[in-house]
Amino acid sequence: VIQARQLTIIGPGLLGASVGLGLKAVGYAGRIVGVSRRRSTAERARQRAAIDDVAEDFAPLRDSQLAIVCVPLGAFRATFTAMAKHDHDALVITDVGSTKQSVLADARAALPAPRRFVASHPMAGSEQQGPGAAKADLFQGKPCILCPQADTDPAALGEVETLWQTLGMAMTRMSPAAHDRATALASHLPHAAAVLLIQTLLAAGEDEAWAVASTGLCDTTRLASSNPPMRADIIHANREPLRQALGAYEQAIARLRTLLDRDDPAELTAYLEQARDARQQWLARREQST
Amino acid sequence: VIQARQLTIIGPGLLGASVGLGLKAVGYAGRIVGVSRRRSTAERARQRAAIDDVAEDFAPLRDSQLAIVCVPLGAFRATFTAMAKHDHDALVITDVGSTKQSVLADARAALPAPRRFVASHPMAGSEQQGPGAAKADLFQGKPCILCPQADTDPAALGEVETLWQTLGMAMTRMSPAAHDRATALASHLPHAAAVLLIQTLLAAGEDEAWAVASTGLCDTTRLASSNPPMRADIIHANREPLRQALGAYEQAIARLRTLLDRDDPAELTAYLEQARDARQQWLARREQST
Repeated sequence: VIQARQLTIIGPGLLGASVGLGLKAVGYAGRIVGVSRRRSTAERARQRAAIDDVAEDFAPLRDSQLAIVCVPLGAFRATFTAMAKHDHDALVITDVGSTKQSVLADARAALPAPRRFVASHPMAGSEQQGPGAAKADLFQGKPCILCPQADTDPAALGEVETLWQTLGMAMTRMSPAAHDRATALASHLPHAAAVLLIQTLLAAGEDEAWAVASTGLCDTTRLASSNPPMRADIIHANREPLRQALGAYEQAIARLRTLLDRDDPAELTAYLEQARDARQQWLARREQST
Repeated sequence: VIQARQLTIIGPGLLGASVGLGLKAVGYAGRIVGVSRRRSTAERARQRAAIDDVAEDFAPLRDSQLAIVCVPLGAFRATFTAMAKHDHDALVITDVGSTKQSVLADARAALPAPRRFVASHPMAGSEQQGPGAAKADLFQGKPCILCPQADTDPAALGEVETLWQTLGMAMTRMSPAAHDRATALASHLPHAAAVLLIQTLLAAGEDEAWAVASTGLCDTTRLASSNPPMRADIIHANREPLRQALGAYEQAIARLRTLLDRDDPAELTAYLEQARDARQQWLARREQST
């Protein structure tokens, strides 16, 4: 069970407020405080009973034993710096950021005791945003990646692991570099591919292309409709792994061009079968694990 | 109304059998004959009452006034050649092929009177295949592109237009080159992008990437699970427009790389907003037109 008697959620938006709702749904008896730059966000989270109390500064950290940072990636450095003034030996800190090398670098640079910080990436989300879209079961059955470091405090690691397990998440551990490479390939590259498809159609400037576009384009580009500032933040924080993933993608395009040039339908079919089979196998593994 | 008293469907699979079911649903009184290389396909279509009669050769064309070619793109040339022996002045021919320059080239090369051939692309389909998946309303409300040529017989064009309108389709006309450029951008490039994403993950060989992959990758790569031989056929037939679309896509990647290098989150956000807005506007236009 979670040891913390008071828990502070910094940024009670979709993810932060869902942590609050989820903990209350499973009977967490401690106090939950929400800290937000925007009063309206925290008020909405309190209305939904995701948090018990609203604060506009980090003073509640003094009496908290656990803090969950749910701010945009670009705000981590400033948030950690502001938290530092209220840090104390009994405080465990974690986060929900989509990239881990940048967050850990910010933690090392700004927190007095980075060993009490445990980097987490609970892989849950939604097209929607804000505490209004929060759900008690948002994290249920989803994967959560922890990136403990050599000097991470074992008790802090245990508390953070318990937090996500309490919310029903399936835990995995990775190095921050492996995490960032993996999310660049599996999440940021697909987002980029979707945006690039729309940008290619825009650049072509052919009305006919939009006229014939159908469900295929719609599904393939769904990610291009996700929140631009949030996505820009993620791309920026993970730009080096994304650059490498784009390089691998360009190599794949070069190989497809070779197949087009060779003009051998059987070889092209085998290439498409290889991709279809890999996708189906992944979907089958995913089905099994949930 | 459709003038033909007998209609021959060549290849009564998903699309062909859906034409039969759709026409019967709106009270078409003529006879519908299905021609298939595979006896089992035609028998299944007859069991479903999509066709009245099964034939294994093209003799029924003699007594037909309309023929709809629903074979894979790679089989058009041989199909037209076999049809030529039974062609006659009262026969109108159309097709459902996904590319139009290749089909028109095959028609010009193999049909005795290409002016009685009207190239069509009814933009309907499904993940499924075969007459078992056919539906009377498969074409309802979907776009259908006609590519009439300078010498196309006006009566033939009228009959084919009536056919698709009877099935509830929204008609558009384009040149075959514009059609093939448009489908390369809006359909074949998204399919390629999906396959390339899976191939990139395969080539990376990182288990972590598959482990963190979620609904984003799933949606973006849905097209990678579509039928490989059919897709290879389409890619092969439309390889030159697809090459050009891939070139435009590579230019878009180069522009994204420039944005990553410039390291300006505001500029990156504007780029993502441009794509999101273009996609939302397309979806809104699409909503209005159906």
